[in-house]
Amino acid sequence: MTNKYYMPTKVIMGNDCIIKNSEIFMTLGKKALIVTGAQSAKRNGSERDIKIALEAVGIPYEVFDKVMSNPTISCVYEGATFANKNAVDFIIAIGGGSPMDAAKAIALLAAQEIEEENLFSGIYEHKVLPMAFVPTTSGTGSEVTQYSILTNDKAQTKTSIASDLLFPTVTFLDAKYTEHLGVLTTINTVIDALSHAVEGMLSVKASFVSNALALTSIRMIINCVPDLLQALQSGSETVISLKQREQLLHASFLAGIVIAQTGTTAVHAMGYSLTYFKEIDHGRANGLLLGEYLKLVEKVQPDLSGTILEGMNFSEAQQLKELLDELLGDKEEISVEEIKQYSKRAIQTKNIANSVVEPLEDDLRTIFTQSFAK
Amino acid sequence: MTNKYYMPTKVIMGNDCIIKNSEIFMTLGKKALIVTGAQSAKRNGSERDIKIALEAVGIPYEVFDKVMSNPTISCVYEGATFANKNAVDFIIAIGGGSPMDAAKAIALLAAQEIEEENLFSGIYEHKVLPMAFVPTTSGTGSEVTQYSILTNDKAQTKTSIASDLLFPTVTFLDAKYTEHLGVLTTINTVIDALSHAVEGMLSVKASFVSNALALTSIRMIINCVPDLLQALQSGSETVISLKQREQLLHASFLAGIVIAQTGTTAVHAMGYSLTYFKEIDHGRANGLLLGEYLKLVEKVQPDLSGTILEGMNFSEAQQLKELLDELLGDKEEISVEEIKQYSKRAIQTKNIANSVVEPLEDDLRTIFTQSFAK
Repeated sequence: MTNKYYMPTKVIMGNDCIIKNSEIFMTLGKKALIVTGAQSAKRNGSERDIKIALEAVGIPYEVFDKVMSNPTISCVYEGATFANKNAVDFIIAIGGGSPMDAAKAIALLAAQEIEEENLFSGIYEHKVLPMAFVPTTSGTGSEVTQYSILTNDKAQTKTSIASDLLFPTVTFLDAKYTEHLGVLTTINTVIDALSHAVEGMLSVKASFVSNALALTSIRMIINCVPDLLQALQSGSETVISLKQREQLLHASFLAGIVIAQTGTTAVHAMGYSLTYFKEIDHGRANGLLLGEYLKLVEKVQPDLSGTILEGMNFSEAQQLKELLDELLGDKEEISVEEIKQYSKRAIQTKNIANSVVEPLEDDLRTIFTQSFAK
Repeated sequence: MTNKYYMPTKVIMGNDCIIKNSEIFMTLGKKALIVTGAQSAKRNGSERDIKIALEAVGIPYEVFDKVMSNPTISCVYEGATFANKNAVDFIIAIGGGSPMDAAKAIALLAAQEIEEENLFSGIYEHKVLPMAFVPTTSGTGSEVTQYSILTNDKAQTKTSIASDLLFPTVTFLDAKYTEHLGVLTTINTVIDALSHAVEGMLSVKASFVSNALALTSIRMIINCVPDLLQALQSGSETVISLKQREQLLHASFLAGIVIAQTGTTAVHAMGYSLTYFKEIDHGRANGLLLGEYLKLVEKVQPDLSGTILEGMNFSEAQQLKELLDELLGDKEEISVEEIKQYSKRAIQTKNIANSVVEPLEDDLRTIFTQSFAK
């Protein structure tokens, strides 16, 4: 079987890396559209730094700050219309997964006409606006992937556009924009990154490259867990130092490179229903399921789960489950009917076939049941 | 300080990956120039597979097989003239570092006029022919770097063209083309890769990403050392299994990504004179010097050398020195005058300033002296 490694985004890292590298925007275009949510980019200073950098090199810009959590298809069409009306020729995304994923779709839709029914086809003309990304959470990895994940109300789930056109041109990693994230958002997003790294190793597309990056990411995240737990207990995000914030941002970036190669597996397949129907945060949804899925892997392919667990200094999957339980706190209620429905949906996704240990529908029901057991 | 990660080449790996992915050549152009040396690509089957793949998708090609070891500037100008005369629009490189580095310069020179005195300026128009690379040794890493290293007779050394334009578009990694490499070539090239990984960690541009890849590469190479030593003792390259050949090819590729981020350090700076003036193979030249340079690092920054040595299961640099001595066998003679001259040249290179532990000219003389002591 042949395998691949591809991640063409230029990644620039470090304190004040946006302002220090403002000339790079001149290589992207002549007028920018800043795509972001309503608030966080203003609060954490990232939008201000982008504006300073653009002004330093004389590039005008418009702002589209209407991206909601779990962005919808209509949101990205609205953004693309706004982009074209304002004649921008490149996109700057600031935020967590929602603004970044929306920005990719906007960059694609602003460059070419795509009917809504063909949006997820993966077949496009070779045209997209250049993109600069600024992640302000440590979880999604969208800053280095080719995926744009949108809420698809017709399909009643999240659906991904996957195309090499969607790799950002450049990504800036500056941990200070994540410094004031609340404890729960920090934990939920970190668990998303951990899930990416672990699922990458559980994917049929895993390679020695993706595994090396995944294990590094896993180790970096696990090293930060004691402080995350302390932050949770104290209720204060200031317990997490800037140095640790940087570790988490870097770990999330590595895990993003991993899923750009491998895609995700059964955990994400199941998690999407929890987010769509029960509004459980995406990272939290993965975290609720990850331990039980790894326990299934442990039964079938103990060497595979063993390598992953070794990176966490654990000897069995139950230890990861317990750690995640501690980080996630009280669990939501889930009914037998919901479990049946979500399992039926998940089993049909391509993420299932992407899993080295491919669960049956019955396995999914067991994982849902055990994951929510109190 | 800000740091970067960038490696936009698409890498396709696995047995028969060229033939299985022949359609990718249609995305590169309409007529190919195969750039290679006189013999090895014919012997190891790689040129045949490229021709089968091109014929499968109806792409005509020409062959420029005049690249010698340590290619000269006149060789790459000749190749570019040949490319333009034959109206090719993309380049396929097959071979070790020499054909690959020559192919990059040819791809650049065929796309734009560059006077010889500006060849190493790094300032070019944004034009280059697309490139597909097939490494047939496990050492150079050129298949995933932006460097083209040419023999520069005016400067009496090897000089590198460095430009993001020179990253190959696509690289194929298939270990079977390395299967019949002789023992000494295998060892010399592997030591080049090891030197890249180690020097990457000793560079001022090292980051958590490059270090993760470097340590993985180091571990993969060290795992193959017992079989390399056995091959050396028996004089037979067949001792090295295809599985191990693949490990070495992958380790070399990872080390290539590393130096694409970090550049090389004092070891390469010193090694170039050994190759230019004494015709010592490039990998061997690095290997002769690496142990003594790491001993200098050990004195000044033991934590840094310690992390590297830990990846080899060593506790001190002397152990690496002894391992390299065993792999390299009898050493060449070097005179006091040569040491003086080479140290004077090396101290002026930018590789020295790229080293975390920046040696003085006197340190270089000591390293040369100790490295060749019998």
